[in-house]
Amino acid sequence: MPLEFTIHTRDAGTKARLGTVKTTRSEIETPVFMPVGTAATVKALTQDMLETLDARIILGNTYHLFLRPGHDVIGGLGGLHKFMAWNRSILTDSGGFQVFSLGDLRKITEKGVEFRSHLDGSKKFISPEVSMDIQIALGSDIVMCFDECTPYPATFEQVQTSLELTERWAKRSRDHFNLHADRERQSLFGIVQGGVHPELRKRSLDGLVEIGFEGYAIGGLSVGEEKHQMYDTTEYIAPLLPDDKPRYLMGVGTPQDLVESVARGVDMFDCVMPTRNARNGSVFTSEGKLNLRNAKYIRDDGPLDPNCSCRVCERYSRAYLSHLVRTGEILSSILCTYHNIHHYLDLMRRVRHALRSGTFGEFLAEYRRTFQSIQESSPE
Amino acid sequence: MPLEFTIHTRDAGTKARLGTVKTTRSEIETPVFMPVGTAATVKALTQDMLETLDARIILGNTYHLFLRPGHDVIGGLGGLHKFMAWNRSILTDSGGFQVFSLGDLRKITEKGVEFRSHLDGSKKFISPEVSMDIQIALGSDIVMCFDECTPYPATFEQVQTSLELTERWAKRSRDHFNLHADRERQSLFGIVQGGVHPELRKRSLDGLVEIGFEGYAIGGLSVGEEKHQMYDTTEYIAPLLPDDKPRYLMGVGTPQDLVESVARGVDMFDCVMPTRNARNGSVFTSEGKLNLRNAKYIRDDGPLDPNCSCRVCERYSRAYLSHLVRTGEILSSILCTYHNIHHYLDLMRRVRHALRSGTFGEFLAEYRRTFQSIQESSPE
Repeated sequence: MPLEFTIHTRDAGTKARLGTVKTTRSEIETPVFMPVGTAATVKALTQDMLETLDARIILGNTYHLFLRPGHDVIGGLGGLHKFMAWNRSILTDSGGFQVFSLGDLRKITEKGVEFRSHLDGSKKFISPEVSMDIQIALGSDIVMCFDECTPYPATFEQVQTSLELTERWAKRSRDHFNLHADRERQSLFGIVQGGVHPELRKRSLDGLVEIGFEGYAIGGLSVGEEKHQMYDTTEYIAPLLPDDKPRYLMGVGTPQDLVESVARGVDMFDCVMPTRNARNGSVFTSEGKLNLRNAKYIRDDGPLDPNCSCRVCERYSRAYLSHLVRTGEILSSILCTYHNIHHYLDLMRRVRHALRSGTFGEFLAEYRRTFQSIQESSPE
Repeated sequence: MPLEFTIHTRDAGTKARLGTVKTTRSEIETPVFMPVGTAATVKALTQDMLETLDARIILGNTYHLFLRPGHDVIGGLGGLHKFMAWNRSILTDSGGFQVFSLGDLRKITEKGVEFRSHLDGSKKFISPEVSMDIQIALGSDIVMCFDECTPYPATFEQVQTSLELTERWAKRSRDHFNLHADRERQSLFGIVQGGVHPELRKRSLDGLVEIGFEGYAIGGLSVGEEKHQMYDTTEYIAPLLPDDKPRYLMGVGTPQDLVESVARGVDMFDCVMPTRNARNGSVFTSEGKLNLRNAKYIRDDGPLDPNCSCRVCERYSRAYLSHLVRTGEILSSILCTYHNIHHYLDLMRRVRHALRSGTFGEFLAEYRRTFQSIQESSPE
């Protein structure tokens, strides 16, 4: 089996699970946050830093790597792991989300999606088969089905039509993957669509389960719907996903979203928030988000987060980081990204520790209280 | 003494010296290359990386730190070392070079230089006294006199007038420094001007020696003159600098320039070349300079430099770095800068090793042969 998933313990009061996803390359303790490495790099971090942070799995983006340098180049060099000198696990998305985000630049047919590259305007085409071919050439440990990410808002009928296309594409993804993938190493995840409609989510899930996948993702959330709709949809659909397979909530979210979604039964997450925010000088701390452009940090010689044990908090001050952000220095991106990824990975470590020691209920209550008081004092 | 300079050995066939500059913060083996950390950061490197690279001293730029965040801010936070979390030595320039580079934005009088900030156009003023106050507030281990960097080309008379101003400013720098500096920790270097005219260089030097400094720099080179003029001027003036004090050739240069200048008696160097080139995807190797934008590296899975032992060459390929450069990823700046600074520091290590083992003559001959053959094959 290219992917083994073991559940070690379940929280009594919530749907949270503590587990391990094992690929041929690394053991990934779940719940897990996966840093996003769009173009074969988690922006502003070295692979050594990712290892120091104990990231066991990162994301790659099929769309970006397809355009530059091309999966033929990466495949010819021995695959994405070798290319980027990263020996631990890699999950790649299908390219669907980016392609659909192109708006007028793309045309969807039953066969696939025609689009123009955002780089040079050249015509490109991605179908379920092409997406599989790319991800197979990249050598991703976890391959994602090519799906249509249903836009929000959309009518019930639009969502339904979309998820039916996603289901047909999931079948084609599965078939093509089965024929061509390195099945000793690679596994394929299906993506549940259905917007914020429980019955459509259920219908999408049933279709996928009939095809059968090594893991199941919840797609189409965090795309503009209200926060409570995202939580409600996750709360409804996550526990219905096959219990013995990893559950992955795509593109989510804030630290609070992660904790709330773990409680709703999710095992895996990815989001650009910690990396993108870092490059804008916005950092996550135990006391809420800090914007380093705020004048009050110019002479603040304290660490970013007094409760953080990361190297950045150990060595550097808010004053220094504030200076680096204001002067646009590359080091600000490096240090803020390092800290933010540490914050996310450490949060997941604390979640897992609570699950392991049977105290997730207390952890959740305490986390909600802290978050509540942060919101009320609205620090930034 | 805030600065001790010891010469351990001298090369028999050249003017090269092996020594140690000791400040209260670090022991610096010379000849040494000092990475440039303009705005309190060596661009794209963390301080941890600089320590791993074994940088014992780095530069800071008075002009940039004066404008942002201001020496009052840095001084109030305990000085530049504490501000940037760097416990080893720091040399700061005087701000003169940057101010004179402003062209029409500045006005020089006997008193000092009035200029407009390149950031917001606000009116500023730096004089020898102000430059000393800034560098004293920063807490630099090595403070540089405020000098006029004579433009090139200039007439003999212009160079002469300029060096006379530099001499009067050197006296005022010395006097103000003596009154206000932390003389337990800080030391002051004078700067020899005089363009490419031996007699003016000599006159400038004599004036400075009469004032007396803890070290002597050669300024006003690498500003547009021919390479042979730079070498000839260094060859003439470096050996005339006080033998028992460190000799610092400012703003120079290529790896070849460093080796040639060591042979002419120079102990200390700084240059933005390794860091700036790195951010443009240009890297120094034992086989010459590589431009990673060159198409031939797209599928090249070899290291940047097969003869380099740095972490970047150990882990990453030319193909990957070429991809990072092409996509404008921050990681390309990080890795190329790391490699280039390693190249410079390692070159100086090899120079010192040759001096220590009495083989500098062979080293120099071999280095010149290699450089010659690189030039003839003109790899990029």
